Amino acid sequence: MAAPPPSSSSISTPLILYNGVIVTMDPHSRVFRNGAIVVSGDRIHSIGHSDDILRDFSHLADGSIDLCRRILLPGFVNTHVHTSQQLGRGIADDVDLMTWLHERIWPYEASMMEKDSYVSTLLCGIELIRSGVTCFAEAGGQHVGGMAKAVELLGIRACLTQSTMDSGEGLPVNWRSHSTDYCIQSQKELHRKHHNTADGRIRIWFGLRQIMNATDELLLKTKDAAEELKTGIHMHVAEIPYETQHVMNTRKVEHGTVTYLEKIGLLRENLLAAHSVWLNDAEICFLSKSGTKVSHCPASAMRMLGFAPVREMLDAGVCVSLGTDGAPSNNRMSIVDEMYLASLINKGREAYISGTTNPTAVPAEVVLKMATINGAKSVLWDNEIGSLEVGKKADMIIVNPFSWSMVPLHDCISSLVYCMRTENIESVMCNGQWIMKDRKIVNLDEGEVISLAMQASNDLLKRAGIKIPNKMNFL
Amino acid sequence: MAAPPPSSSSISTPLILYNGVIVTMDPHSRVFRNGAIVVSGDRIHSIGHSDDILRDFSHLADGSIDLCRRILLPGFVNTHVHTSQQLGRGIADDVDLMTWLHERIWPYEASMMEKDSYVSTLLCGIELIRSGVTCFAEAGGQHVGGMAKAVELLGIRACLTQSTMDSGEGLPVNWRSHSTDYCIQSQKELHRKHHNTADGRIRIWFGLRQIMNATDELLLKTKDAAEELKTGIHMHVAEIPYETQHVMNTRKVEHGTVTYLEKIGLLRENLLAAHSVWLNDAEICFLSKSGTKVSHCPASAMRMLGFAPVREMLDAGVCVSLGTDGAPSNNRMSIVDEMYLASLINKGREAYISGTTNPTAVPAEVVLKMATINGAKSVLWDNEIGSLEVGKKADMIIVNPFSWSMVPLHDCISSLVYCMRTENIESVMCNGQWIMKDRKIVNLDEGEVISLAMQASNDLLKRAGIKIPNKMNFL
Repeated sequence: MAAPPPSSSSISTPLILYNGVIVTMDPHSRVFRNGAIVVSGDRIHSIGHSDDILRDFSHLADGSIDLCRRILLPGFVNTHVHTSQQLGRGIADDVDLMTWLHERIWPYEASMMEKDSYVSTLLCGIELIRSGVTCFAEAGGQHVGGMAKAVELLGIRACLTQSTMDSGEGLPVNWRSHSTDYCIQSQKELHRKHHNTADGRIRIWFGLRQIMNATDELLLKTKDAAEELKTGIHMHVAEIPYETQHVMNTRKVEHGTVTYLEKIGLLRENLLAAHSVWLNDAEICFLSKSGTKVSHCPASAMRMLGFAPVREMLDAGVCVSLGTDGAPSNNRMSIVDEMYLASLINKGREAYISGTTNPTAVPAEVVLKMATINGAKSVLWDNEIGSLEVGKKADMIIVNPFSWSMVPLHDCISSLVYCMRTENIESVMCNGQWIMKDRKIVNLDEGEVISLAMQASNDLLKRAGIKIPNKMNFL
Repeated sequence: MAAPPPSSSSISTPLILYNGVIVTMDPHSRVFRNGAIVVSGDRIHSIGHSDDILRDFSHLADGSIDLCRRILLPGFVNTHVHTSQQLGRGIADDVDLMTWLHERIWPYEASMMEKDSYVSTLLCGIELIRSGVTCFAEAGGQHVGGMAKAVELLGIRACLTQSTMDSGEGLPVNWRSHSTDYCIQSQKELHRKHHNTADGRIRIWFGLRQIMNATDELLLKTKDAAEELKTGIHMHVAEIPYETQHVMNTRKVEHGTVTYLEKIGLLRENLLAAHSVWLNDAEICFLSKSGTKVSHCPASAMRMLGFAPVREMLDAGVCVSLGTDGAPSNNRMSIVDEMYLASLINKGREAYISGTTNPTAVPAEVVLKMATINGAKSVLWDNEIGSLEVGKKADMIIVNPFSWSMVPLHDCISSLVYCMRTENIESVMCNGQWIMKDRKIVNLDEGEVISLAMQASNDLLKRAGIKIPNKMNFL
């Protein structure tokens, strides 16, 4: 459902962008070869052929921008990113999963303070904006207050989530004490404080770290609380084979997490199941029937988890979107790179299923959908974002394809998915405001954030007692 | 074997680069935390701690550059790239292999003229330089003359190869007529004309497109001719399961191409076997024992071929390097991205071998070796390039890691492999000359090349009768 468009009389200072290739990602997959768009306030007022738009709106416009054949796209939606882990980039490369979790990530997260989360989210936000992201779903961190402050400054849109656990072995000491009730109440409090703030750009979701750190009581109370507050639940699902085994042993079901969540009624339209790698056919069917959303994180899956059945989920009608995961799981927080990877990995994965790769699997237009409108659906915000349509919020990016990295442009859509790099993204608008203009981050001093981040991350690693061994012979 | 260093008296105008992190990739894996390097003419004269170098050479130096803690690395070697296919980027995305070959690539290559090859190599060269490549191995194109002219202008180093076929079904008409003798003689002529030109930056190799397009006579005469001229052979090897089956049926051996090449004595130190995906254990052993080099092309393998047994080859002592393949097989001609992919893919591939991914497989330092010293060995040039050592050629790159894409820098080596993007590469030197300085390509006008390439590629597609269907609803 789209919001009603403002009447022509309500346009006070419309901005016209014209003479561009406009990839709308609307339900008809329309692309205007020479298109224009009118932005009024925080919304898209009109979209069409340049000639028509210029004829109808030039006299009203406060400003107009000649796109010079550049490409205009909806902003990308990153549906799984740990903004608080940005300061931990490089702390857990090439180590096994147990070292990753117990010796690096848990000590890191447990030593983090709210001001670290703020700086980490600022640094991550710069990378998100530079890779064309206008909305992200936080995968769950410790200090939602710090994140919210950063999101407000960055000008980006976000669904923020607290990392929530009420059980599980091996957790750092200061996490053990959280009762189920505390988990629910603290998130309700965050919702009360931050939901719908920053001009409506911030929403608060409920978080479930993973099934092995959640009692049944937490699972069920989270479901009820999210229903009560009409918001979403973000959970790590079916990440590793051990998880499946653990659920079968402790929860007495025939397969893993998805089977159990189905049994207790947690699979539903407001659940965003990140990763969803280790699924059987029945579970893919459960996800589809329930309208559960899946965030596919290609790089992180390759490195840490395994090959998610993405083609099968898409074929079954599951809404699959794209996420970067956190910096210690991937290192590049770029949806641009994840698009490239999503296509490559899922073509290659066919080699293990049918004996040869299938270069036609998960084609460019599907990947672009995953990064835009499917992303918007995954964060329950597709009534306002995810495509360029009249009445929707003006969240969009300008791509300059006339560089060494993209020419020649024989296939505009596949070039966006397979050739584009962050360098090609010139400007980013969120909620009708430029948050990057001509490659300059608008709302903050990038150099200052980088300095703060380097200092904060060094201090944090010292507090956490994390030491990274040298990979070569440093003199 | 390193060339003897020039004596200190022979330094006329040395250049000092100091105050940098120098990752040498030498046999001791030395990294100077605060290092300096002295370049004299086209070679590295000295390398060491900044204090020592500045003390010993400042009075002799014509100039010095403060690296301000940037990272200095050997230039990357791209060991499999079709420079002539750059104009065909985007012509064969998301299509099956038969469409790819018969309806797109063969018509494209058969319609290419020497001037197209020149422009294509210029465009590809810009992308190579921007991603830190100082030396590449051409995978085989139609017009070596055009390539050589472009390489001379770009200032890069290359082993150029003609695409060579004397048999095979379905080839375009103007390729069918090449006799075995013509194949050999034309390559000898290219060698006579271009080998060791452009200040020694160009070498000419022999090419074998693939075993299904080569008679036994061509295979054996190529071996003899390469031996006679003391140069290398570049061949596509074990790309698809069909190739294995074809070789078993027609050449009567127990497995595929590598088994047959071993039988006829073609496996040897001067053979660069691109891809090498479909191998059995015996064949890995053949490659290792013979000293055959392998070019692993991660993106192209994922999309078109399958998962090469990279970890197994490395474990068996095979020299594995990295290649991008051509633009219609991959789209991004960036060794920076291939490094990221090489690690991810080979960690993920373990999921199919052992049931779970192995995040410790093919770690960053191994990937960096593949992109540098192993690349140099693969192109038979490691006596002069591939590492920063006294007496070697000054082929090197300056990386600025102090940006949103790489900070914080907790692990310098893994950050280079997992975080670095082309944006981080600021300057590139080849043969002692800057070919990119402060992100500006030195020897040519980048905008002009882009314009020429767009025009040439449109004309070429028209001549070839190639039409790319729209992926969306263009209005």
